[in-house]
Amino acid sequence: MEYLLSAESASILVNSCDTFLLDMDGVLWQGDTLLPGVKETLSYLRQKGKTLVFVTNNSTKSRESYLQKLNKLGLDVEHQDVEKIFGSSFATAVYLSQVVKFPSEKKVYVVGQQGIIDELSRVGIQCCGGPEDKANISSDTEMESIVPDNIIGAVVCGFDIDINYKKYAKAYTYLSNNECLFIATNGDTTYPNNGRLFPGTGSLFTPLVASTKRNPVVLGKPHKIMLDCIMAKYNFSPDRTCMVGDRLDTDIVFGQSGGTKTLLVLTGVTSEDYLKSSKNKIIPDFVIDSLGSIGTIFNPA
Amino acid sequence: MEYLLSAESASILVNSCDTFLLDMDGVLWQGDTLLPGVKETLSYLRQKGKTLVFVTNNSTKSRESYLQKLNKLGLDVEHQDVEKIFGSSFATAVYLSQVVKFPSEKKVYVVGQQGIIDELSRVGIQCCGGPEDKANISSDTEMESIVPDNIIGAVVCGFDIDINYKKYAKAYTYLSNNECLFIATNGDTTYPNNGRLFPGTGSLFTPLVASTKRNPVVLGKPHKIMLDCIMAKYNFSPDRTCMVGDRLDTDIVFGQSGGTKTLLVLTGVTSEDYLKSSKNKIIPDFVIDSLGSIGTIFNPA
Repeated sequence: MEYLLSAESASILVNSCDTFLLDMDGVLWQGDTLLPGVKETLSYLRQKGKTLVFVTNNSTKSRESYLQKLNKLGLDVEHQDVEKIFGSSFATAVYLSQVVKFPSEKKVYVVGQQGIIDELSRVGIQCCGGPEDKANISSDTEMESIVPDNIIGAVVCGFDIDINYKKYAKAYTYLSNNECLFIATNGDTTYPNNGRLFPGTGSLFTPLVASTKRNPVVLGKPHKIMLDCIMAKYNFSPDRTCMVGDRLDTDIVFGQSGGTKTLLVLTGVTSEDYLKSSKNKIIPDFVIDSLGSIGTIFNPA
Repeated sequence: MEYLLSAESASILVNSCDTFLLDMDGVLWQGDTLLPGVKETLSYLRQKGKTLVFVTNNSTKSRESYLQKLNKLGLDVEHQDVEKIFGSSFATAVYLSQVVKFPSEKKVYVVGQQGIIDELSRVGIQCCGGPEDKANISSDTEMESIVPDNIIGAVVCGFDIDINYKKYAKAYTYLSNNECLFIATNGDTTYPNNGRLFPGTGSLFTPLVASTKRNPVVLGKPHKIMLDCIMAKYNFSPDRTCMVGDRLDTDIVFGQSGGTKTLLVLTGVTSEDYLKSSKNKIIPDFVIDSLGSIGTIFNPA
């Protein structure tokens, strides 16, 4: 593990890679605030001819929504670059359409937000649930109306700030049919919001694990399906690629299991104390205080 | 394991016991419907001088509310009999006030319904959360207002049909203080409703387990604290007592670990097929199709 503190050490990393896989939340921004120096770092990497691919486990936004967010924050991403954004909702759409070959007559019940519906709809998969079940069960009659439904071929769980009992009750009922697939967009147990943590997707789906005694197929980092999606598109060489992220158990493991170099930033979930503690077994190749520091190292103010 | 099918076999059980511990949902009633013959069975047991104690893991109602329900269904329970009703919310109140000696200046944050608040308030414990947090987070500002609070000395989780992200976010934040106790009224992973199952308390608290990496102290059946509460009050002899319930992993294990006789009824969660299957390792002393059958056996129509 090497700390990137000087132009010399940063150069070794930058020159050894053609592609950077960049996690977004906690790396480029915190909440709605761009981190200092990130814009300059991305410009620098682009000038050097590097390919930048954005990889996030957040399932609440579609790739289009991320493109808008990147541009709103001034990161100058062009419209065709939507293809360079890989979210866990998109990975779910790829998994269902290409790996599982989800039948067109079946529907997915979504415990999650609009991003999942958008990505699944784009590949022609029928959805229900999600925002349409935002209002909770209001009567015994409504509770009794929740019954098994063979048209539901999969339950997909993502992050859902509007989680409620109706969604758990419906998902539980559909999953009582063992042929109904159980899929989670990602397994992150916490969700960063403005520098603080709250329960994440990997926590919100656990009531369905406990009640059904089934475990979901988990997509997103660090699971391989996400890397397969990216490689199918870009066919990069892992040993000339660096995964940059703030989370050891998703971002860094994801890079390591794909054979890429790994760079941990300390602007997100992982503290330097935790990184160095005996509890931590995941060691990245490189560490830097902030992605923005790369721009500063090469273009000092 | 003996099936109670005749007056002879039923007599052996009835004559060998002075006290019957009765689970309620799935034993006396399903939803709001009294099961056939239950009224006659309870009258018969009372005539024979048996003590009837009602024991439920359902945390949504206080003992007062159960008394009202028992009477509304025509089971003729007198007001002083509220002392014979033991719910998991009451067990939680006993645990906090007598075992933990919960400090009077601290508050409990409740992920659950009114029954918990009622029982905790009755023993002088200050509560917050529960029904007052029924409305979910509506803005980023509200999310940011959820911060650690040392006045919260415990998070208590029960069944909560109004579960939402605000409650999970607050409970997670309070539990990030390791001195804040983490308590669940019961561990039932499913919740019976009108003859069907939905996710229960033991499922709904799991997002907090996954996100905090902490496990709650679980009260209610089959855990011993509930039996300690009952025995402190009635001091019955376990070998002259029968625990009657519909659930193997709570009711029957509860009786077995307390040294009572056990009677499984088939009007609730457990099917005869499951009882007899190789998957099941929990064998009650006696089985009957329905508690109501005892009344029918002794008073045939």
